[in-house]
Amino acid sequence: MLDARLVKKSHPEHHTIVQLSNQVAIGGSNVIVIGGPCTVENAAQMEQVASQLAVAPIHALRGGVYKPRTSPYSFQGMGVEGLQILAEARSRYGMPVVTEVMSIAQIELVATYADMLQIGSRNMQNFELLKALGQAGKPVLLKRGLSATIEEFVMAAEYIMAHGNPSVVLCERGIRSFDTYTRNVLDLGAVVALRQLTHLPVIVDPSHAAGKRELVADLARAAVACGADGLIIECHPEPDKSVSDARQALSLEAMVALVHSLEPIARAVGRTLTKDQGAKTKQLAAV
Amino acid sequence: MLDARLVKKSHPEHHTIVQLSNQVAIGGSNVIVIGGPCTVENAAQMEQVASQLAVAPIHALRGGVYKPRTSPYSFQGMGVEGLQILAEARSRYGMPVVTEVMSIAQIELVATYADMLQIGSRNMQNFELLKALGQAGKPVLLKRGLSATIEEFVMAAEYIMAHGNPSVVLCERGIRSFDTYTRNVLDLGAVVALRQLTHLPVIVDPSHAAGKRELVADLARAAVACGADGLIIECHPEPDKSVSDARQALSLEAMVALVHSLEPIARAVGRTLTKDQGAKTKQLAAV
Amino acid sequence: MLDARLVKKSHPEHHTIVQLSNQVAIGGSNVIVIGGPCTVENAAQMEQVASQLAVAPIHALRGGVYKPRTSPYSFQGMGVEGLQILAEARSRYGMPVVTEVMSIAQIELVATYADMLQIGSRNMQNFELLKALGQAGKPVLLKRGLSATIEEFVMAAEYIMAHGNPSVVLCERGIRSFDTYTRNVLDLGAVVALRQLTHLPVIVDPSHAAGKRELVADLARAAVACGADGLIIECHPEPDKSVSDARQALSLEAMVALVHSLEPIARAVGRTLTKDQGAKTKQLAAV
Amino acid sequence: MLDARLVKKSHPEHHTIVQLSNQVAIGGSNVIVIGGPCTVENAAQMEQVASQLAVAPIHALRGGVYKPRTSPYSFQGMGVEGLQILAEARSRYGMPVVTEVMSIAQIELVATYADMLQIGSRNMQNFELLKALGQAGKPVLLKRGLSATIEEFVMAAEYIMAHGNPSVVLCERGIRSFDTYTRNVLDLGAVVALRQLTHLPVIVDPSHAAGKRELVADLARAAVACGADGLIIECHPEPDKSVSDARQALSLEAMVALVHSLEPIARAVGRTLTKDQGAKTKQLAAV
Repeated sequence: MLDARLVKKSHPEHHTIVQLSNQVAIGGSNVIVIGGPCTVENAAQMEQVASQLAVAPIHALRGGVYKPRTSPYSFQGMGVEGLQILAEARSRYGMPVVTEVMSIAQIELVATYADMLQIGSRNMQNFELLKALGQAGKPVLLKRGLSATIEEFVMAAEYIMAHGNPSVVLCERGIRSFDTYTRNVLDLGAVVALRQLTHLPVIVDPSHAAGKRELVADLARAAVACGADGLIIECHPEPDKSVSDARQALSLEAMVALVHSLEPIARAVGRTLTKDQGAKTKQLAAV
Repeated sequence: MLDARLVKKSHPEHHTIVQLSNQVAIGGSNVIVIGGPCTVENAAQMEQVASQLAVAPIHALRGGVYKPRTSPYSFQGMGVEGLQILAEARSRYGMPVVTEVMSIAQIELVATYADMLQIGSRNMQNFELLKALGQAGKPVLLKRGLSATIEEFVMAAEYIMAHGNPSVVLCERGIRSFDTYTRNVLDLGAVVALRQLTHLPVIVDPSHAAGKRELVADLARAAVACGADGLIIECHPEPDKSVSDARQALSLEAMVALVHSLEPIARAVGRTLTKDQGAKTKQLAAV
Repeated sequence: MLDARLVKKSHPEHHTIVQLSNQVAIGGSNVIVIGGPCTVENAAQMEQVASQLAVAPIHALRGGVYKPRTSPYSFQGMGVEGLQILAEARSRYGMPVVTEVMSIAQIELVATYADMLQIGSRNMQNFELLKALGQAGKPVLLKRGLSATIEEFVMAAEYIMAHGNPSVVLCERGIRSFDTYTRNVLDLGAVVALRQLTHLPVIVDPSHAAGKRELVADLARAAVACGADGLIIECHPEPDKSVSDARQALSLEAMVALVHSLEPIARAVGRTLTKDQGAKTKQLAAV
Repeated sequence: MLDARLVKKSHPEHHTIVQLSNQVAIGGSNVIVIGGPCTVENAAQMEQVASQLAVAPIHALRGGVYKPRTSPYSFQGMGVEGLQILAEARSRYGMPVVTEVMSIAQIELVATYADMLQIGSRNMQNFELLKALGQAGKPVLLKRGLSATIEEFVMAAEYIMAHGNPSVVLCERGIRSFDTYTRNVLDLGAVVALRQLTHLPVIVDPSHAAGKRELVADLARAAVACGADGLIIECHPEPDKSVSDARQALSLEAMVALVHSLEPIARAVGRTLTKDQGAKTKQLAAV
């Protein structure tokens, strides 16, 4: 490993806890679930999502308002209007919100609405953006690049920390391979390795890895079993009508059922997966 | 998917159970563990391995006597002498034995000593060997090729079945990728997909995927959590002295501890992981 | 292929010519060579490079002043001082200059010094940057992402064109693979495919593909033979002392010798590779 | 590099010449072309192929009679009847013949009909087959595995040599990647590397790499330009009616035209590509 000075684990029990809100922290003994649609489409959609997820052990909401699309002619996201919709859901249901930023110019605005700034796979080595996130004042969810090595992933986090932001969560979301049956290959070996090499929380996105909803639940269970600190999963009130990634979104019912099935697995590996547990105190105590 | 006539699942509860011995079957509700060294080195080694594994919920022994080595100058295995050592351990401890065959000529001999014939990754599309296995009269453990697609893997099993042998177990063991931190990338998405596409049992080899022993336990837990029907794991009385794959072998103590940690995960996904449970009856009933 | 409306070839003889200067154009019958160091290090270095390349059939200079480095602790480039050094070499030797921009904020400044803006592999899907390049008023050299599909590469060019800039040159520079002997795998099949699918010029970077200087010349010859419109090659007065990518830089002598060896290959495929040929007129006539 | 004792180049001018017949040798100054259909289908087909290729600078015939097919239900080849068809074409047109062997049992029979035994990608690490080829008494054309590293490829050749057969020709035929536009990625960097690391001849199969006939000619030209000692290219009297790999086969006319276009490129890199040039003498003299 290169000179990962700040990201490197100094001893086996060295874990950073990233606080998303007073109630929600990632990296402690409680496994965290982030759910929501690929794309924020309208207020009614987010209201439906948030109201159903809020009563399950799901801790935060996701939803894209600036969308990195392969084609310039695909829907590029609702922008600020989408941020307002997210903020409403957040205040109504008390769930912190995660959304993607695609450029330096978007950071300030997004940071006023969201609790965590997501950096997508395509920007994992957008180094100028990483540097700017050092001053963002909000936690960063850094997704692994499509074919980033573990070392490159760790060093991308080092950029953010070296520029002043200690709150980074790593997210494994599948890597490119030769096979086309799954969209990407979920690399849980990387999750295990990252938790040994760094003190940062590591979460898993089984939705983008699988690309097919019928594979998501089993992969989510695997992620918890191998020690992931959390999950970020796509769900939608009407998955087949999703404006993007329709094939991989869970229904809200399937999402809630999945999360309940994760609880005994979390326990089997010495963790919890509960909604309200005075997260902050317990988790800090755990460290 | 191509014309996977025999391998294809006909309905969600269509599961084939492959019987290794009167006591041990793969593909039922009980998760099966196969353990042992990469290479059979001598009788004392196998005695140590078998005696310690026999008292844990570990169901079968592995050990290579014909070794596919990248270099012609590396140790190529003990051959028939190794088979005799395996057979001794098997009869002394009542554990079925799995070992690799590398050519048609070896099948008959190996089949007289072993309970299951392993086909290594490098031979997954050695079609003449697959055809010959159709008449081997023993179950086959078919490992996924280094960069085989899910379709190619399934069709390799189809070759064996189409030539007369219905007892095939699929084994995911990691695929090639660009990253060098892990030896291969364990593709649990493929495990989930294979269990949905085929009725054959699917097991996981976390040792060859990880290539580093400190990653093996977490990956084994992930495999059970996502529905694998079993595991095949390398262990050695003195891992660092193993003549091959030393870096990935568990100590016998670590092996036993790992297997005990899998039990609650198996339960969390509606399975068991026990040693003696009148395996056959219960498992058949489960189907 | 997606909706590559602007990038798509409309008929076999549809070729766009991108003009770098009055003398230098890419995409016509003359094969173009761009040479220079990975990183601009100081004025003396660039003076040496430019003076030696200027008298060979080498058409433009490259040199990085904003460097995308895996580690935040590696040298990040000379910035504006480096741009001034490039501009001096350019005016003294009459060679257009190509250099990388890593963020929207850098575009305006770099565009005042350079004749072509390079987008590195890591930013190929930095969509906000691509959009901003639409208004840059300078040609763009778009490098293929580390694991970008041909479709994604083409659609990244579409972003730039759709936002107003018709002058895009595509650059194949090797893709990620499982092998570690070469740094990347030069995908000349993609070069051939891109020239069939799009009307944009396609050039090849054999230096980053090979990662080893002893492989560069043969790969450069292959690139010209398969129809590439140009080459971008790293060279340095003292390759082993290069601050970055030292292992792949050619000496200036080797660079010049290589370019001379390309001439008969260009002729063998119906092209030329000459320095001064009233490039503009002849090339436009060729279309 | 591992212990590639026999395969390793001892000095830059160390080249092995593999003699296919009195007239045809691979590895000297003359670039060799092998052409023919993927699959031998009937006598009329081979007669058409051989009669048209014989009058062009094409040196040997290819044609599969034992076919490695992904599905057991696909046509598996004509077997011995196909060998007889090949042998007829060979004696009528004086062109040596290359065909694949898939198992040890086939070696003896195939060796009585063919001048060179091809080992397909899927058997590159079928080590028992490699060992048996050591005693085959005929040159071996060893194709690179689907995802074999350069080191593994070299060591597979070492197996054959270590078991007694010095006549091995290496064949790069594309490796697996994430992109689906081309069937495989032709790795010409490997060709260059192999020619620097080993003294064995290295040829290129652009057909299987490209998977699309419209890409084959440009890739063939690139292969010659980077120093390949020969090419093996699929062609068919009626490409679209080919029983296998129809999409990549050239028509016989396109094949002949392609080979003529290679001649000036061969000359540009100091080689020849001619039909009758007292191949043996000149080539030995060249070494």
